[in-house]
Parts: sequence; structure tokens; C-alpha cells
Amino acid sequence: MMERRLSIKKGWVGFIAVVAVAAVPVFATAAEQDYSKYFKPIPASVENADNPSNQAKIDLGRMLFFDPRLSKSGFISCNSCHNLITGGVDNLSTSIGHMWQIGPRNAPTVYNAALNVAQFWDGRAKDVEEQAQGPITNPGEMAATQEMALDRVMSMPAYVTLFKEAFKGEATPITYVNLAKAIGAYERTLLTPSRFDDFLAGKKNALTDEEKKGLDVFVGKGCVACHNGAGIGGRSFQKFDYGTDMGRYEVTKNAADKKFFRVASLRNVTLTYPYFHDGKVWNLEEAVKIMGEKQMGVKLSDDEVRSITEFLGSLSMKQASVEIPMLPPSTDRTSKPDVK
Amino acid sequence: MMERRLSIKKGWVGFIAVVAVAAVPVFATAAEQDYSKYFKPIPASVENADNPSNQAKIDLGRMLFFDPRLSKSGFISCNSCHNLITGGVDNLSTSIGHMWQIGPRNAPTVYNAALNVAQFWDGRAKDVEEQAQGPITNPGEMAATQEMALDRVMSMPAYVTLFKEAFKGEATPITYVNLAKAIGAYERTLLTPSRFDDFLAGKKNALTDEEKKGLDVFVGKGCVACHNGAGIGGRSFQKFDYGTDMGRYEVTKNAADKKFFRVASLRNVTLTYPYFHDGKVWNLEEAVKIMGEKQMGVKLSDDEVRSITEFLGSLSMKQASVEIPMLPPSTDRTSKPDVK
Repeated sequence: MMERRLSIKKGWVGFIAVVAVAAVPVFATAAEQDYSKYFKPIPASVENADNPSNQAKIDLGRMLFFDPRLSKSGFISCNSCHNLITGGVDNLSTSIGHMWQIGPRNAPTVYNAALNVAQFWDGRAKDVEEQAQGPITNPGEMAATQEMALDRVMSMPAYVTLFKEAFKGEATPITYVNLAKAIGAYERTLLTPSRFDDFLAGKKNALTDEEKKGLDVFVGKGCVACHNGAGIGGRSFQKFDYGTDMGRYEVTKNAADKKFFRVASLRNVTLTYPYFHDGKVWNLEEAVKIMGEKQMGVKLSDDEVRSITEFLGSLSMKQASVEIPMLPPSTDRTSKPDVK
Repeated sequence: MMERRLSIKKGWVGFIAVVAVAAVPVFATAAEQDYSKYFKPIPASVENADNPSNQAKIDLGRMLFFDPRLSKSGFISCNSCHNLITGGVDNLSTSIGHMWQIGPRNAPTVYNAALNVAQFWDGRAKDVEEQAQGPITNPGEMAATQEMALDRVMSMPAYVTLFKEAFKGEATPITYVNLAKAIGAYERTLLTPSRFDDFLAGKKNALTDEEKKGLDVFVGKGCVACHNGAGIGGRSFQKFDYGTDMGRYEVTKNAADKKFFRVASLRNVTLTYPYFHDGKVWNLEEAVKIMGEKQMGVKLSDDEVRSITEFLGSLSMKQASVEIPMLPPSTDRTSKPDVK
């Protein structure tokens, strides 16, 4: 018990820092309140000037996202851990990689990831394009090399054609950076509007009364200080004094970044369990309670926790299915899967 | 060399047995020949009187097919090894299962599997419904138990509703047999018409001249003796004296079944590499050559091999994508994935 109280006190430090930069929410009911100062609807697209989008690039990226041949074994694709039919995650505490290695952190969702301030829990990649370069060559994840991935792709005429179209005018269209850019271009299309966006657009009955009540608690208790914007989070790094993971400090080696993590987007949060960077909390109400204690130094009542959780359900995507293209077959020039 | 000649002679025994029950093909060109005596177009559906189909059952089966929670780890679904975007297979010699165990035989395609005389290389399951019961509880594959799979399914209201609709009128709709029946009902929809079906329907220019020539070689050389019907194979067991696997003998313990295997369907064969029950042959021309030698005692010329292979390309599906439904989230009652 003492330990928990201590963490609550520590939590306040982060909270005070946060409210200093965000408007202190004034309580008002969902009917009256102007939520547009906290939240934005999901945009139609999230562009990256360094990776201008085109249909060939998106089509190529989608194929690559689902292609297990980007992994050494030929068994693991981006979608294995960022499964689009299960909220863009694998619903495991931490992911399974090459030869069943178990990863160190929970896989964040790929849905709406393009809205995030940076990628990975520690923000070590600046955007989805840079992120996509990581897992393919990570020995504990897909375990390929850049050469292996590129050689395989280049061995299939359908891919070569798409690369040339996607990166028209470039002297060398098929590069590892472009491969990741194509995946990034596809990921930028993975935006999931929900009933909450309808609500923000003025359709007041898009949320139930319970959800509206939860929204008011969410705002009133200050969750909105970090979980705001179009992603309902994902736009800042905050201290989360939970577990032994040093978070962003491992990237920056700056002592002030110890235990700092990118705030999670709450879009689709009912689908992206288990929670937190270690994926050890399976129950959303429990996660909300921990957030209250650790981040805001507040002991939320059971009723408040239930209310907030009810609201969070309104952030789940409307999309009901995913369409996946058939992949081109390997050729004699495609290097064989290596499962060892 | 002596060894190879010996196998050719052995091969003749099987070949003679085959031609005794099939019409000896008379050579004629594609323009003249009536191919309907050998081949049938893909049917619109393949019904099973013991598993009457309905839309709820198909929808349920599709969700289950893609749901990794049917495996102990929560990481492996039916689709992991029978990947619908790569010809219904994993394109590995033999499949990867729970904790990266490597399986004993190559994963056959799930596309058009309902047309087969029986399931698995050794035919140990009589239909797709019986087959679907196998991998979920196989300790080397999905490693669940029947109870685990059922408990997880029953913990999710969306599944419970679908089971009740799919098996309306049954006292206990959620059983392991019904779970497999739902998957089977979905698999029965995985039929893939190709240009060859258009050709059989009278559209003579649906095949290229090269493919027509290959078809004539395929028929003229006797491949059609086993590879016939709607599946272009899959309807009989034949001896294949290749490797040490005893095949159907392991099921029947009948000495006459030693090294007998279910004939592979050649539908989508350009996508379902690597070939044969051990998945050790990656090149389709090489597989055709081995078939000629081992099964027909014929040394096909390079030109004939190329021609046949060209024809086989016309058996590839027209379907360009797969639509996959979002899965219902787990609940507090859903048992956690166990990756060990």
C-alpha cells in the first residue's frame, strides 16, 4: 500500500507538468460543452511531404504489409503483429517473432498510427515510414536483412512494376527506404472514424447518454490533458512510472526522459488490449484506474471508471472488414524461406 | 542413375493400375477434342448433407478461420498456414506451429479443398468439416484443446449469437464439432474459377495457344488419368514412390496403401509451391518432370514439360482479393493467450 501511495505522489509531478501546458478543463455537460477545443475528428488523410502518396504506392504498401516474405522465415508479415482484423494489434502482452522469440514491449496499433507524434513506445522513429524499416530487420521480429527483403521483392515482376509506378522518375525505385515508404503510405490510409467523430461533427445522438456522461468525466478529471486531438492521444511523451522500462531514456540517454513514453492513442482502445508498454493489464477499467492513480493522482470511483470506459467504447472504428489483395507468387529467383 | 530407372519401373505399376480405370487418352488438338470427358468446371457450390449451409454459418466460419484465438498462443489461425492471399498455403516446405515447431508434411491448399475425395495428404479426414477439427488441437500446430477453443468462443457474445443462428434449433449450438462445421461451411465457399473454366464452357480463346498445346500434352501423356474432374485431381489415392513417408498406410495399416497419397488438385498449382507432401520441390517444371518419371514412367522432353507447365498456369484463380471481417474483441471471460 505504501508503495502505491508513493507512486501516486510521483504521478503528480507528471500531472502538474501536463496541466501547465494544457487548458485546465472546466466541467460542463456534454450537451453544453464545446469539445472542439480538446478533440478533432479523424482527418480524411495524413500526408507526409517526404512521401507523397499515389495509388500505386498505397497498393504496393498494402501488398508488402501482408507479405510474409519480408521475413526471413516467410511466415511473419507486418500484419502478424499488427493484425488489421484485431484492432491493428496481436492482442498479446508482447509479440512473437522469428523462431518464437518473445519481444520486449507490447505492439502498438497500426490504425491511426500516422497521427502519432512519433512511432514506437519510445518514439525512436519519427514517422510510420521510418518505423516500417525496423521490424523487418530486427533479429527478434522478422529477422530479415535489407538485402534479403529487397532481393525477394525484386524477384517478382508484379512488385517491380508497382515499385516503378509508385516511385516514378526515381533512378532506383526499389530501395529499402522506398519499401518502407510504400508501407508507410498504406498505413497513412488506416484511419478509423468512429461514432465519436459523428458526435464532434454535431450529431449529438451519436453517443449514448452513458457515453456522454463518460466523456464529461474524461474531460472533467483531466484525462483530456494528454488524450486529446484527432488521435485522442499519441501527440506527446509523458512520464509513466510503471514497471522498470526506462522508455524514451533508452533513445535519448537524457535523464529527464527516464520512464517517459509516447502517450497512447485511445482510438480503438477497446480492441487494443492488453494495455501499457508491457501489455500486462488486460482489463480496460483497470487500465483507466491505473491511469487515474499514476498520471493524475486521482482515485477514480468505480462509477467514474465505468463511465470513462463506456465513453472509450465510442472510439471504436466503424469499419467492418478489410480487403486484402492476393500476392504475386515467388519465382525461381526468390530466395527460399529460412525458418531457422 | 540405376536408382532412378528402378523407380521408373516401380512407377509403371501404379500407372497401369490407373489407366485400367480411366479412358486411355486419344491424342487430338485442343480445337477438336472434347475435354468434358476429363474435366468439369468448378461448381457454384459443394454441399455437404451433414452440414447444410446458411449465411450465418459461413460468416461464423470465416471469422473462426481467421481467429488466432483458436490457438493456445493466440498467434496462429487457420489462415496462418492456409493463407488465402498466397494460394491458400504458407509456401513453406512444412508448416510452422506452436512454439515454432516444424510440421511433418506440406500444408495443402484450402482453396477447392471441398472438392477433394478426402482431406490431408493421407486422407485421414473424410471432409473439410472433419479436417478442421485436426490442427486446432494438434500440439505441433495450434496446440489448443477443444475446451480452450470453445471456452474462448463462448466468452464473446458476437460468437454466441452467430453460433445460435448458424445452428438454429440445436439444443447445444456451441460444440467443437459445430465449430469445425462452421469452418467447413466457409471453406466450401472457397472455390476458384479460372480461365480454364471459361475454356471448358466453350470460350476457346480463354486459353493461349501455348496453354492449349500444353493441355493436349497433359491429356496425351496421361496426366489426366489422375488429374481430372473439377479439381483437376484430388479425387483418388495413388502410389507415389518418393521419399520415405508411408502416406495412407499410416492411417489404414494396410500394406497395399504404402506410399499412397491423395492426388493433389492442380487448381492454383502455380501458387501452391513448394510441391509434394514433403514440400521439397520448389520449381513447377521440376515437379512436372518428376511426375512424368515416377507416375507415368515417361521421360517428358523439356518442351513438353514447359508446355504442361504453361497449361497449368491457366488453372490459377481469377479472384484478386479476399475480404476479411473484423473479429469481436475478447472479454474478461476469454482465457488469455498462452505462448508457452
